[in-house]
Amino acid sequence: MMDQAVGLAAVSVLGVLEQAYFSLQVIYARRKYSVSPPTTAGPPEFERVFRAQANCSEYFPIFITVLWTAGVFFSEGLSSVCGLLYLYGRFRYFRGYSQSAQGRLAPLYFSAQILWVLIGFSSLGVLLSFCRVYLNVDLLQVVGSA
Amino acid sequence: MMDQAVGLAAVSVLGVLEQAYFSLQVIYARRKYSVSPPTTAGPPEFERVFRAQANCSEYFPIFITVLWTAGVFFSEGLSSVCGLLYLYGRFRYFRGYSQSAQGRLAPLYFSAQILWVLIGFSSLGVLLSFCRVYLNVDLLQVVGSA
Amino acid sequence: MMDQAVGLAAVSVLGVLEQAYFSLQVIYARRKYSVSPPTTAGPPEFERVFRAQANCSEYFPIFITVLWTAGVFFSEGLSSVCGLLYLYGRFRYFRGYSQSAQGRLAPLYFSAQILWVLIGFSSLGVLLSFCRVYLNVDLLQVVGSA
Ligand SMILES: N[C@@H](CCC(=O)N[C@@H](CS)C(=O)NCC(=O)O)C(=O)O
Ligand SMILES: N[C@@H](CCC(=O)N[C@@H](CS)C(=O)NCC(=O)O)C(=O)O
Ligand SMILES: N[C@@H](CCC(=O)N[C@@H](CS)C(=O)NCC(=O)O)C(=O)O
Repeated sequence: MMDQAVGLAAVSVLGVLEQAYFSLQVIYARRKYSVSPPTTAGPPEFERVFRAQANCSEYFPIFITVLWTAGVFFSEGLSSVCGLLYLYGRFRYFRGYSQSAQGRLAPLYFSAQILWVLIGFSSLGVLLSFCRVYLNVDLLQVVGSA
Repeated sequence: MMDQAVGLAAVSVLGVLEQAYFSLQVIYARRKYSVSPPTTAGPPEFERVFRAQANCSEYFPIFITVLWTAGVFFSEGLSSVCGLLYLYGRFRYFRGYSQSAQGRLAPLYFSAQILWVLIGFSSLGVLLSFCRVYLNVDLLQVVGSA
Repeated sequence: MMDQAVGLAAVSVLGVLEQAYFSLQVIYARRKYSVSPPTTAGPPEFERVFRAQANCSEYFPIFITVLWTAGVFFSEGLSSVCGLLYLYGRFRYFRGYSQSAQGRLAPLYFSAQILWVLIGFSSLGVLLSFCRVYLNVDLLQVVGSA
C-alpha cells in the first residue's frame, strides 16, 4: 500500500519544510522588530508575519488529513497535484499577508478552493469505498452501466 | 488494510468539515464586529468565537492521531463511534463558548472524556500489538485462559 | 504493514499524553493567575505557560507527520528513537519556558535539531521509494556497487 503513497509522503514532507520556513520567518521578525517571547503583540508588520504563520499552522493538520484521505481513497496523483497547488497558495498567502493584510486575500481564496477540492475528492473516495466494503456495491460500475 | 479504515476516514473528513465551519464562523464574526486581521482582540463576543475555533484547532491533530491509532490497533467501530461523539461535543463546545465563557465547560468535559477513552483504546491496542509482534505473546489469549 | 508501525503508534500516543499534560498545566495556570477565557493576556508567568503550550501544539502535527513518513519510508526504529528524544526535548522546553523566556532556548534548539533529523530521514526514505517505485532503480544498491 505504501508504494502508492510516495507522492503523498513527498508532498507532506514539502509541507513540513514550508512550515519550518514560516517559523524561521517569525523568529527573524521577532528579532527585527524586537518582540521577545512570550509577547505576541507588536507593530503591524510583525503581527502580520506572526498571524500568517499561525493561520498556516492552524490549517496544516486539516490539509494533511484531506491530502491523505483523498490520496488513499480517491487518487494519489490528483491529490498530490492539489497538494502542491495548496502549498504554493500558502506560500503566496504568507508572502502577501507579510506585506499587507489585503495581500493575504487572493491567495487565501485560492488555497481555500484547493482545500474544498481535496475535501470533495476525500468524500467521494470514502463514499465509493463505503459502498464497496459495506454494501458490496461498486458505485462507479453502477453509474457506468446506467 | 485501507478497507478496514473507511469508517475512520469518514469521521476524519467530517472533522475537517467541522473545522471549516468553525473557520467560516470566525470570518463572519470578524465582519460582524469589525475586527480586521492581523488584530485578534475585540469585543468579548468576538473573542469567544475566535478562541473557540483556536481551541478546537489546537485539539484537532490530537484527535486525528488517537482516532487512527485507536481505530487501527484496537477497534475501527468503537473508535469511529467515539470520533462522532467527539465531533458532536466539539460542536456544542463551539456553540456554547460563542454564547458565554461558562457555556463552553459542559461540552469541554464531555469531549475531554471521549478523548481519554480514545487514548485508552490506543494505549491498549498498541500494548496488545507490541506483545504480539515483539514478545510473540497474545495477551488477550493469556488473559482469557487465566 | 501495521505490525511494523507499533513503535510509531506508541510514540504518537505518548506525544498525545504530553500535549494533554501541557493543556492541563495551562488550565491550572489560568486558575492560579485568575485569567479567565476568552482572555489570553495576563502576568508574564501565565503568558509563558500559555505560549509554551501554544508553541508545542503548533509543532505537534509537524512532528507527527515527519515521525510517520520517516518511520514508514526510512526506518521505524530510528524514527521512534528520534520521536522519544523530541518529546523529551519538548518536555524540557515547556518546563524551561514556564520558568523564564530564556529557559526555552536550549531545549528549543535540541528539539529543532531532532526535527531536522526526522525531516532528513523522511526525505531520504521518500527519495529511495520514489526511485524504486517510479524509476525502478534501487539507489542503495547503486551506491553500494559504486
Ligand atoms: N509561533 C512561534 C513561531 C516561531 C518559534 O517557534 N519561535 C521559538 C523561538 S523565538 C519560540 O520559542 N517561540 C515562543 C512562542 O511561540 O511563544 C513564535 O511566535 O515565536
Ligand atoms: N483564525 C482565523 C480563522 C479564519 C480564517 O482563516 N480567516 C482568514 C480570512 S479573514 C484569515 O486570513 N485570517 C487571518 C488570521 O488568521 O490572522 C482568523 O482569526 O481569521
Ligand atoms: N489553549 C487552552 C489550553 C487548555 C484548555 O483547553 N482550556 C479549556 C478549559 S479552561 C478551554 O476551554 N480554554 C479556552 C480557550 O482556549 O480559549 C487555553 O488557553 O485554555
